[in-house]
Amino acid sequence: MKKNKKINIAIVGLGNIGLNLYLHLIKNKKTIIKKNNVNFDVKYVSAKTIHKKRKIKIPKKKWLTNFIHASKLKDIDLVVELIGGADGAAKKLVFNCLKNKKHVVTANKALISKYGDQLALLAEKKKVNLEFEAAVAGGVPIIRTLKEGLIANKASKVYGILNGTSNYILSNMDKMNFKSVLEKAKKLGYAERNPKSDLNGEDVKSKIQILSSLAFNSFIIKSNINIEGINNIDEVDIKNAEILGYKIKHLGLSEIENGKLIQCVHPCLIKKESRISNINGVLNAVIVEGKPIGKFVLQGEGAGPGPTTSALVSDICSVLRGNIKFPFAVSHLNRKKITSIDLSNKMFSSYIRLDVIDKKGVLSSITKIMSKNKISVKRLIQNPLRGKKFASIVIVSHKAKNKNLVKCINELKKNNFILKNPKFIRIEEI
Amino acid sequence: MKKNKKINIAIVGLGNIGLNLYLHLIKNKKTIIKKNNVNFDVKYVSAKTIHKKRKIKIPKKKWLTNFIHASKLKDIDLVVELIGGADGAAKKLVFNCLKNKKHVVTANKALISKYGDQLALLAEKKKVNLEFEAAVAGGVPIIRTLKEGLIANKASKVYGILNGTSNYILSNMDKMNFKSVLEKAKKLGYAERNPKSDLNGEDVKSKIQILSSLAFNSFIIKSNINIEGINNIDEVDIKNAEILGYKIKHLGLSEIENGKLIQCVHPCLIKKESRISNINGVLNAVIVEGKPIGKFVLQGEGAGPGPTTSALVSDICSVLRGNIKFPFAVSHLNRKKITSIDLSNKMFSSYIRLDVIDKKGVLSSITKIMSKNKISVKRLIQNPLRGKKFASIVIVSHKAKNKNLVKCINELKKNNFILKNPKFIRIEEI
Repeated sequence: MKKNKKINIAIVGLGNIGLNLYLHLIKNKKTIIKKNNVNFDVKYVSAKTIHKKRKIKIPKKKWLTNFIHASKLKDIDLVVELIGGADGAAKKLVFNCLKNKKHVVTANKALISKYGDQLALLAEKKKVNLEFEAAVAGGVPIIRTLKEGLIANKASKVYGILNGTSNYILSNMDKMNFKSVLEKAKKLGYAERNPKSDLNGEDVKSKIQILSSLAFNSFIIKSNINIEGINNIDEVDIKNAEILGYKIKHLGLSEIENGKLIQCVHPCLIKKESRISNINGVLNAVIVEGKPIGKFVLQGEGAGPGPTTSALVSDICSVLRGNIKFPFAVSHLNRKKITSIDLSNKMFSSYIRLDVIDKKGVLSSITKIMSKNKISVKRLIQNPLRGKKFASIVIVSHKAKNKNLVKCINELKKNNFILKNPKFIRIEEI
Repeated sequence: MKKNKKINIAIVGLGNIGLNLYLHLIKNKKTIIKKNNVNFDVKYVSAKTIHKKRKIKIPKKKWLTNFIHASKLKDIDLVVELIGGADGAAKKLVFNCLKNKKHVVTANKALISKYGDQLALLAEKKKVNLEFEAAVAGGVPIIRTLKEGLIANKASKVYGILNGTSNYILSNMDKMNFKSVLEKAKKLGYAERNPKSDLNGEDVKSKIQILSSLAFNSFIIKSNINIEGINNIDEVDIKNAEILGYKIKHLGLSEIENGKLIQCVHPCLIKKESRISNINGVLNAVIVEGKPIGKFVLQGEGAGPGPTTSALVSDICSVLRGNIKFPFAVSHLNRKKITSIDLSNKMFSSYIRLDVIDKKGVLSSITKIMSKNKISVKRLIQNPLRGKKFASIVIVSHKAKNKNLVKCINELKKNNFILKNPKFIRIEEI
């Protein structure tokens, strides 16, 4: 409880999040000081464009003429990096801040998943904090929980719904098609103008890499990650899943199997009774399985100015309170190298939808190809499609190796009786 | 990162939890030291009976001859109190430990809810830690989350499923009656031999008091708490709720309305679509509503040696890392006095079940009494009961003041056509 200390903060990047954070810190200054018993000041800000209409006026003396000064000025103790992006300005700023013994708080998942190991080592050497609660599921304090609340546990699996945009789209596709939901999401501010990395799984990839390294005390593992987005999911798949007793969710998953790490990002079917099947809209959820705690679930809003500010302020308060912590819970020396493997040999039940020409022998050809690839049918529903000439065949397969499933789908695809690319969605037993 | 420091721990109380903790600390010593960069030793233990068959052998030199020595010996830095109970030995031990500048970690909700304010002030004065993560929902690190992860937020409401025993019973009463589920729960170790305080709401009362004071930065408020247990819920109510689109859950709730605190503990109907309606069995869930985070849910196992050990170890690690924290997040001076009010004027929809003699004029008498008390009917279902002479009337009422609802039930009770005590269960819109 250091009464006389004062921490000077610089916020670099004043978009939606940056402005919201600035406002929150100004408005709640007294409460934050009370809660942490440490004085602070938002002394500087920086943004690409200084002269831009903003909803609040920031005093001239607070403006840095160049963002990189935040890493150099002696009267700055803590820099909040909100520029974004794995490289360029953000990278330059954060590396320089740490080198110059300034604490860093960031929401930048791309940066942390790419350079987190180097940055953490640098922070450790320089005895400053590097905090990134806001990088994964803003309104869900999963990073702090993994580092502190669950510190006693040996995790075996960590997974969750980590992208609000894709979860919003999937949970509204029972009413309208992908394109229409995406348009609606954009209007409501739930999807960015260019939502590419939200829809193709890249965003979740960064998050699951960060969660893995915290859950398993390992370095960030970048190889063998199977990534699939939600672009390929059709309205009819959502409805079929419903009939079969499932929901389709887009998950990031990471687990240790026989000492090896498997990380993947994909849409999958989960049982309706699952604890996260009701997590709809822009909500996020993270599940940690471990000993001795069992199964632990955190839910909350994943993104947006409110939840992200909540995460950033919790990091800032942690720095204010003054303990120097290892960015990834343990020291560089104690972080482990874990071998990673891809999904090839992992066993999955799966949902397969084939739109076919409805002629004699088609079903027998399909089951023959499946059987050749050691895949057996658990459930099969055939429905006529657009009149009598075509049919939609939905198959729920028994468990089979991922590589066999993929091979089977590729072989099926080659047949003339298959109308368009078969749909193949894995079933996750969670 | 204090490499040369060593923290000596004494565990007082060696029941199921104490033994589990002892084992965990011994087995995972290396990992814990790595994670916190501080050395420690479980130097002493104490229990009512030393010579008792235990699943592990504890070296003789570790045994204290009298538990109170834990508060006196110079080579003890941290005492884990697992005696239990609000008064007696536990109280004596914890007060003395803090007086003698020893850190305390406890799982004792009764003690904290009764003496938490005094104990916190004492800890603050003596500059030691008093941690009690295990006192509320063991496998759910809600205390640390309220104090740190959600530090930026202004909470307006905190509530949840806080008792595993009663949740287990309620979520199994669709298959069997109260008594049979309770027997089963006892066999499975989900209910204590004397589960009184689990079933009558007393256990949840302590927990919600602790959560309130953390969520609202107030002292512990002991007055005006409406407490109801699950003893009164019948199998048929569970089934009726199901038909009406609800689940019956036993909740502890605390919220600020117009600057006043309302705390209560009761069984209630919640919509099936609610995020916590799927929390079954011995699981616990805590929901925090606040700004800027929105609605935040934590789920996990509530009790048992595993989850409780997880909570205790997270507290021990927090002490090992060495920061002195205020037990209730803010200093004594900054904790607020909040006025509390009871449920009287709060508005509730409600579920009312009346078993009646099926004769002319009964329904009209019932509706007359309701109308007199300003309660209007939203839904009414009448079913014959054991032949033609009796009927069961289930009413879902529109919102009305709690005091009017209670008065109405009391008036109904007095009528001869009412066969047994009317059932009255509030509906919580969560």
